Amino acid sequence: MFIPAIKGQGTEEQHEKWLPMAYKMQIIGCYAQTELGHGSNVQGLETTATFDPQTDEFVIHSPTLTSSKWWPGGLGKVSTHAVVYARLITGGQDHGVHGFIVQLRSLDDHSPLPGITVGDIGMKFGSGAYNSMDNGLLRFDHVRIPRNQMLMRVSQVTREGKFVQSDVPRQLVYGTMVYVRQSIVSDASCALARAVCIATRYSAVRRQFGSQNGGPETQVIDYKTQQSRLFPLLASAYAFRFVGEWLKWLYADVTQRLQANDFSTLPEAHACTAGLKSMTTSVTADAIEECRKLCGGHGYLSNSGLPELFAVYIPTCTYEGDNVVLLLQVARFLMKTVSQLGSGKKPVGTTAYMGRAQHLMQCRCEVERAEDWLKPSVILEAFEARAFRMSIACAKNLSKFSNPEDGFSELSPDLLEAAIAHCQLIVVSKYIEKLQQDIPGKGVKRQLKILCNVYALHLLHKYLGDFVTTSCITPKQGALANEQLRLLYSQVRPNAITLVDAFNYTDHYLGSVLGCYNGNVYQRLYEEAWKDPLNDTVVPDGYLEYVWPILKQHIRTARL
Amino acid sequence: MFIPAIKGQGTEEQHEKWLPMAYKMQIIGCYAQTELGHGSNVQGLETTATFDPQTDEFVIHSPTLTSSKWWPGGLGKVSTHAVVYARLITGGQDHGVHGFIVQLRSLDDHSPLPGITVGDIGMKFGSGAYNSMDNGLLRFDHVRIPRNQMLMRVSQVTREGKFVQSDVPRQLVYGTMVYVRQSIVSDASCALARAVCIATRYSAVRRQFGSQNGGPETQVIDYKTQQSRLFPLLASAYAFRFVGEWLKWLYADVTQRLQANDFSTLPEAHACTAGLKSMTTSVTADAIEECRKLCGGHGYLSNSGLPELFAVYIPTCTYEGDNVVLLLQVARFLMKTVSQLGSGKKPVGTTAYMGRAQHLMQCRCEVERAEDWLKPSVILEAFEARAFRMSIACAKNLSKFSNPEDGFSELSPDLLEAAIAHCQLIVVSKYIEKLQQDIPGKGVKRQLKILCNVYALHLLHKYLGDFVTTSCITPKQGALANEQLRLLYSQVRPNAITLVDAFNYTDHYLGSVLGCYNGNVYQRLYEEAWKDPLNDTVVPDGYLEYVWPILKQHIRTARL
Repeated sequence: MFIPAIKGQGTEEQHEKWLPMAYKMQIIGCYAQTELGHGSNVQGLETTATFDPQTDEFVIHSPTLTSSKWWPGGLGKVSTHAVVYARLITGGQDHGVHGFIVQLRSLDDHSPLPGITVGDIGMKFGSGAYNSMDNGLLRFDHVRIPRNQMLMRVSQVTREGKFVQSDVPRQLVYGTMVYVRQSIVSDASCALARAVCIATRYSAVRRQFGSQNGGPETQVIDYKTQQSRLFPLLASAYAFRFVGEWLKWLYADVTQRLQANDFSTLPEAHACTAGLKSMTTSVTADAIEECRKLCGGHGYLSNSGLPELFAVYIPTCTYEGDNVVLLLQVARFLMKTVSQLGSGKKPVGTTAYMGRAQHLMQCRCEVERAEDWLKPSVILEAFEARAFRMSIACAKNLSKFSNPEDGFSELSPDLLEAAIAHCQLIVVSKYIEKLQQDIPGKGVKRQLKILCNVYALHLLHKYLGDFVTTSCITPKQGALANEQLRLLYSQVRPNAITLVDAFNYTDHYLGSVLGCYNGNVYQRLYEEAWKDPLNDTVVPDGYLEYVWPILKQHIRTARL
Repeated sequence: MFIPAIKGQGTEEQHEKWLPMAYKMQIIGCYAQTELGHGSNVQGLETTATFDPQTDEFVIHSPTLTSSKWWPGGLGKVSTHAVVYARLITGGQDHGVHGFIVQLRSLDDHSPLPGITVGDIGMKFGSGAYNSMDNGLLRFDHVRIPRNQMLMRVSQVTREGKFVQSDVPRQLVYGTMVYVRQSIVSDASCALARAVCIATRYSAVRRQFGSQNGGPETQVIDYKTQQSRLFPLLASAYAFRFVGEWLKWLYADVTQRLQANDFSTLPEAHACTAGLKSMTTSVTADAIEECRKLCGGHGYLSNSGLPELFAVYIPTCTYEGDNVVLLLQVARFLMKTVSQLGSGKKPVGTTAYMGRAQHLMQCRCEVERAEDWLKPSVILEAFEARAFRMSIACAKNLSKFSNPEDGFSELSPDLLEAAIAHCQLIVVSKYIEKLQQDIPGKGVKRQLKILCNVYALHLLHKYLGDFVTTSCITPKQGALANEQLRLLYSQVRPNAITLVDAFNYTDHYLGSVLGCYNGNVYQRLYEEAWKDPLNDTVVPDGYLEYVWPILKQHIRTARL
């Protein structure tokens, strides 16, 4: 598929296919975008691709140290080719960042080609994780490639060096982003479910305190402190799964519209996936570590599976859009939506609730008893009102600044909070929608309803300040929600193990001694310990040579 | 110092000295308390030490798999002796857990002695961290030791096998706990300061977005989103330092009183150090990871120093008292203090504020403008009122249960929150007290005042729900606090680098390419990369043998 490109015969369509290939087959090609000095700000990349009309070639060059490509997976030791993002320069004019296919290493002896400096960037977080990946660095010293190794679907450079935009809509780029980010949300749900499965099973095995009359101690999963930390994460794993499924639909819908040149829902879909990517990955990263802590000391052992899961997961918060940068994009979209409310332009998709502005500003939560918090309509209204009022408050404060950009910058921490409130609303509302569908299996829907309420009410408790200060609920109603939450935990408890078994992860996939299906944790911990290479010998290498003499010296000189 | 004990001539006092030795010289002795099945619940340990009056010996035995000692540092491959905690059994009666000195390995060839099974428990979190420590497992099969290898300061077993309590006050044990935990608080401040130093310096070097007219991009430390995440952590590092200094004084005070057999302040001192150990270590663990995220992608590199700092730090949340278990102890103490309020018994030390019950239940925050939040008295009252009202609310809810233990268990998540509120108050109040002292250096006190306000107001914002639902402040006052917080960030910014330079950490100690003093980050990242062993060869071992044939195969079969 990529060979013609290498041979310099690439067409637009072939180039388009090359990109996903570059991801999948790092043995051959890697995706070289990020630089030592530039990650989030792609438009600020420094690598240059200067067109030389005399030879019909681009000259790829790294003008500064900070322009060194940094992080591409597979680049360090393996990739023979790369898609390199560089500033296109023709006739002295900078046309911004474009992609170019560049051969890096010889196909004969794998040595770097002239002008190419390439290597591995070194060790990363964790003992395994991304250390099995040769993330690399790459510098170019005036490396020449044929003109047709530029990816020319959206923009082209002619033989004469003229820069031409094709009629392919540039918005298509956002379609890819929607795709990648919706898959990250699904992955978040999987990773979270994995951590929760381990912590839940182990919490049922582990006993501590509470022995009465010499009987067994209490399973730690029966402690309310454990439940109040663990069950919201279990509920989140399900919530993220359902919102992930919905995002798959959203992507299909967006794709269909794009093919029909309908871009009307794209900005909303883009903001929605960006926000959910940010929110779900941040929550999941923290949750994996929380699950590790919920496993007590043994969670710190590598064979608990949690350290590795954490180390391999956390980059997700940074790659494909830094989570804070993404939330700011969501906030910007929300402020735009708010500003257009009076204009007759109806907010669409996940911002549709903003169309009921008057109601959401005036509504008062009607909860009088704890069980009133079980009504989906009550929950939904509280989350909608909170998200909307926080956006409105930000918009109001923004309007006090004469320069909107100054205001946006100054108020950005508040804007982040408004964006998070909006994203949480999306997850809550998609979960509630899911429960309106048929769900097969006797009693399954009832369990999922309980988890939905746990998800919503734990957020309400955690972000109580938001709900109360915006007068969406009263302090008394907040206390009732908390009371209901405790009751819900008791309802989750009897089915907690079934709810994690339902993820259907094999012991092999879980890779956790603490999370094994049969619960034979201590036996397995003991057996695993003996497999450690340190236990291959009784007396460790070097002990008698180096340590023992010190010990003998101590014993000789010890006096009372 | 330990030799006589080994030789079976130990006296009470020698045994007392042995314990700290066991920590410091793991080459010789380790501290074997935790078991595979028991951590927090020390009283539930299963290892037995049964007195045999016929031979004047104790028989140390591991009756179950879960009674295997697990985690002791230095045990796996090195320690020749251990202080083993086991249930003392004399004449068929169980006297609870006591300490015994047991030789594990031969001093001739280092092989385990008969009846001893010992090994390493395997890999742990991170690539370095505790993987340089041979945390071990240990099982006993009826191992005999002389009677006088029991640590007999508090309890004794006579030649006849009679169990006798000495007149040494048992409360002394708490003195040691106060010592260990106050040192953990100081360590938390150091670890946090280290992470904050790295993230702050790198945030001043890193630039992203915001370039105008081709000029340099904006330093990320100038973004309010970065400031609102980073500066509260900087403030926390200082706050924990000051509360750590105060705890040193507290320990000295407690020690002095213990020597005079005055136990009156011990429960309060114990609760206070337990709570602060829990609160500061939880915050620090999360903060190190937050600092890593604040460094973007490069924070994921091992040479950023942050992954290792995180991996080596997080066990602190579990050891020397699991953080949740400790907070529950604090909550129990608070409930007891509340219950005694009417009895005329005056609350002491860090609970003294509870003596002003009537005022704290009625007071209303007087903040009308953002700058009113700069008054220490206003901040202190808000934190006192919030902590007190949360404790009172818990006590009220507890009283609804006929069985207090059921109530405590059911309401434990709320009790945790009340305990945290109390601990935060301690840190805030000790910081304010510090500022009432002379602080040398021109302008230093002013900077520390700013950070104190940042510390208090960021907590107020984060826990806004607590403050508002207890009617300690109004939503409007919460918004004013947030406004003031933004202004404070702008005041921290010009001195942020100086404030982390003031920690006076050398580059060697920091161990971070991103946090280096001279800010030459990119050059150092680049140089460090080349030092990675993967870069020792141009073509990695095995590439031409294994990978290259696959590549060739791909190229042959590729079709368009």
